[in-house]
Amino acid sequence: MRKVLKGNFIFTRIFGEYEIYRDFYLAIENGKIVDFFKFLPIKYKNWELIEYKDKMIIPSFMDIHLHGAQFENIGLGMDLPLLPWLETYTFPEENKFASNDYAEKVYDKFVKDLIYHGTTRACVFGTIHESSKILFDKFIEYGIGGYIGKVNMNRNCPEYLQEKNSYEETLNFLDYTINKSDMVKPIITPRFIPSCTNELMEKLGKLAEEKKLLVQSHLSENKDEIKWVKELQPDTSYTGAYQKYNMLGEKNISIMAHCVHISDAELPLMQNENFYVAHCPTSNFALKSGLAGIRRFLDNNINVGIGTDVSGGYTLSMRQCIVAAVETSNLYDTYVEKSKPLSMCEAFYLGTKGGGKIFGNVGSFEVGYEFDALVIDDNSTLPLEKRLEKFIFDGKNEDIIEVYAKGVQIK
Amino acid sequence: MRKVLKGNFIFTRIFGEYEIYRDFYLAIENGKIVDFFKFLPIKYKNWELIEYKDKMIIPSFMDIHLHGAQFENIGLGMDLPLLPWLETYTFPEENKFASNDYAEKVYDKFVKDLIYHGTTRACVFGTIHESSKILFDKFIEYGIGGYIGKVNMNRNCPEYLQEKNSYEETLNFLDYTINKSDMVKPIITPRFIPSCTNELMEKLGKLAEEKKLLVQSHLSENKDEIKWVKELQPDTSYTGAYQKYNMLGEKNISIMAHCVHISDAELPLMQNENFYVAHCPTSNFALKSGLAGIRRFLDNNINVGIGTDVSGGYTLSMRQCIVAAVETSNLYDTYVEKSKPLSMCEAFYLGTKGGGKIFGNVGSFEVGYEFDALVIDDNSTLPLEKRLEKFIFDGKNEDIIEVYAKGVQIK
Repeated sequence: MRKVLKGNFIFTRIFGEYEIYRDFYLAIENGKIVDFFKFLPIKYKNWELIEYKDKMIIPSFMDIHLHGAQFENIGLGMDLPLLPWLETYTFPEENKFASNDYAEKVYDKFVKDLIYHGTTRACVFGTIHESSKILFDKFIEYGIGGYIGKVNMNRNCPEYLQEKNSYEETLNFLDYTINKSDMVKPIITPRFIPSCTNELMEKLGKLAEEKKLLVQSHLSENKDEIKWVKELQPDTSYTGAYQKYNMLGEKNISIMAHCVHISDAELPLMQNENFYVAHCPTSNFALKSGLAGIRRFLDNNINVGIGTDVSGGYTLSMRQCIVAAVETSNLYDTYVEKSKPLSMCEAFYLGTKGGGKIFGNVGSFEVGYEFDALVIDDNSTLPLEKRLEKFIFDGKNEDIIEVYAKGVQIK
Repeated sequence: MRKVLKGNFIFTRIFGEYEIYRDFYLAIENGKIVDFFKFLPIKYKNWELIEYKDKMIIPSFMDIHLHGAQFENIGLGMDLPLLPWLETYTFPEENKFASNDYAEKVYDKFVKDLIYHGTTRACVFGTIHESSKILFDKFIEYGIGGYIGKVNMNRNCPEYLQEKNSYEETLNFLDYTINKSDMVKPIITPRFIPSCTNELMEKLGKLAEEKKLLVQSHLSENKDEIKWVKELQPDTSYTGAYQKYNMLGEKNISIMAHCVHISDAELPLMQNENFYVAHCPTSNFALKSGLAGIRRFLDNNINVGIGTDVSGGYTLSMRQCIVAAVETSNLYDTYVEKSKPLSMCEAFYLGTKGGGKIFGNVGSFEVGYEFDALVIDDNSTLPLEKRLEKFIFDGKNEDIIEVYAKGVQIK
């Protein structure tokens, strides 16, 4: 698997800086970028050469928080805040995934729509059901990568979604998935503090450590939810509750979605190179969760990526979420506290390399990185950085003519 | 021009209520809806019948504030607030419209993109130039309707855009446009208070009265702008300054874009059945203008429609602006003052019938209304109200398979 692509590349190696290679060659071997050059060296003369001419090539998107089983609910029931929204719209939909046939149908559409929107890696919640394995296999089938979680819930939810053997079913899911793919991996996925008993959380934390698995969950999304967590875990903060179970990156990468209402006291708990905030700005707008202060995390050396949080978020479009991240930062500066807004370049970094680190070296065009990319045919003659920004703000998905994941053209 | 359409119709006759006709017939004569029925009466048997089967038919969008000449700047330069943004990005681009060739090229793309996004009526700013006539003619050519303004600016702008004979050039524009089309009309368009001398404003107000012309401008978008207006018009409020010149609906319809920072004292000045707020939520997000309190206007019986405000707004997608209107109302309730958020149904009304009133009877499917509509093929079996909301939140423009404006299929 060796090829050379020629075209116009733009990406963000460094937070806040575009790096641009116009009319450059990029050599890929076994899915990884091995070289980058202005003139084609003789040693590559026999490699397959693909000429993209005027097209723009950018890193594909890394969606670090979303719910595959909520795909059919996109754009529905955006009239309620988190807790009643879960009860009214989300849990009944997730219940349908007890059926493998239903799961097969929806997960197939879901993964296609991810690719349509230019996403090639994702951290995804399935449901409590066996059918989460189908989601896992769909990622393999379509050639995209990421972490797939069978959700853990053994309290405070409708009976039909309350697991009796949450831990054992997690082991079963791991048995099926753990060494199945190079690009798709299982991830420990307690829904959030309210839905898992302390005993289960304890066991899941240990399991993650033992099997070297990542952990994903929700943290500090909504004020009512935070109050509820305080009742359940009165001796600590919401962040502190995850710390109890080693779920803040102590043992392996942890991804916590939202982090909207984080107190100063909680901030140091998040300062771990393996901890990631999954910023979900469209979801926070829609569910009235509040404005997350992303600059504050970045200034405190806390990792941040972007998630669409479908279907709290109403689109799988990472472009729209990147725009919403900029908008959130604008509003945060005006209405919460003085804080330098994110530039588009910074938000683009978060949606590509920022979240991409979770999946290894991906989300940037650097030597040694896996080549995940979008080839864009937008008929534009603008300078590349303007062209990129225009594409993010108001591009058309139809203009994404090719999609690469780990060097393989999947669209 | 007589035809009967059969399909699934959804619209909002009343603010906040969907009206749904599933498998209904709708009869159109000379562009207007003349009848609506469950079974086809004998008298229509000879009319052309178009069967849309499972497709969804909704009113097309009414974009009541945007700048045609800023089309090429969509998604560019979103890093500055209003006043430096105008100087740095907007004025240099508008200057290019001194060339008719350039205008022809851009306005052609612009009008096509409006239709692509499902907009069939719009209130548009051109530039100060003669080429605004080209914009006017493009609307006629492509069969959409609205109001086109040659912009007035005779102070406080770069010399290259400062008119010497602003009034006379407006007369010239009116001569060319005033009785040219049934669906496309000229509109008096002082850019905003800072860019027109008092004398010019006075004359424009009288001209609008005399020729029964509508007026459009900008009002209270940004705090620095408001401060500037206060310096220029120290004896009154920003709204009061327009009142001086009869530009608040006293003589004919007036459309004022933004209205973000309106004091309680200004509110009564806006309570006129011919006055419209053009709410531009994506623009307000992007340029950090602030959150407009739309419920407050509605509770005070002030008309509201929605505008994309390209290129302060970064997309011609009215769908995205309708979503952003809901989001703005969510955030306003949380961060400015308690205020019931807009439902999607309410925001949809604002983007269709709410703004549509400016153009006559359009934006709804009622007998006597001009038939402006989108036929949507989204392969959905959801109940129509959910199907509509899903389309607004996360639909694909490719699914808009046909567009009607005044009964004529233009796409």
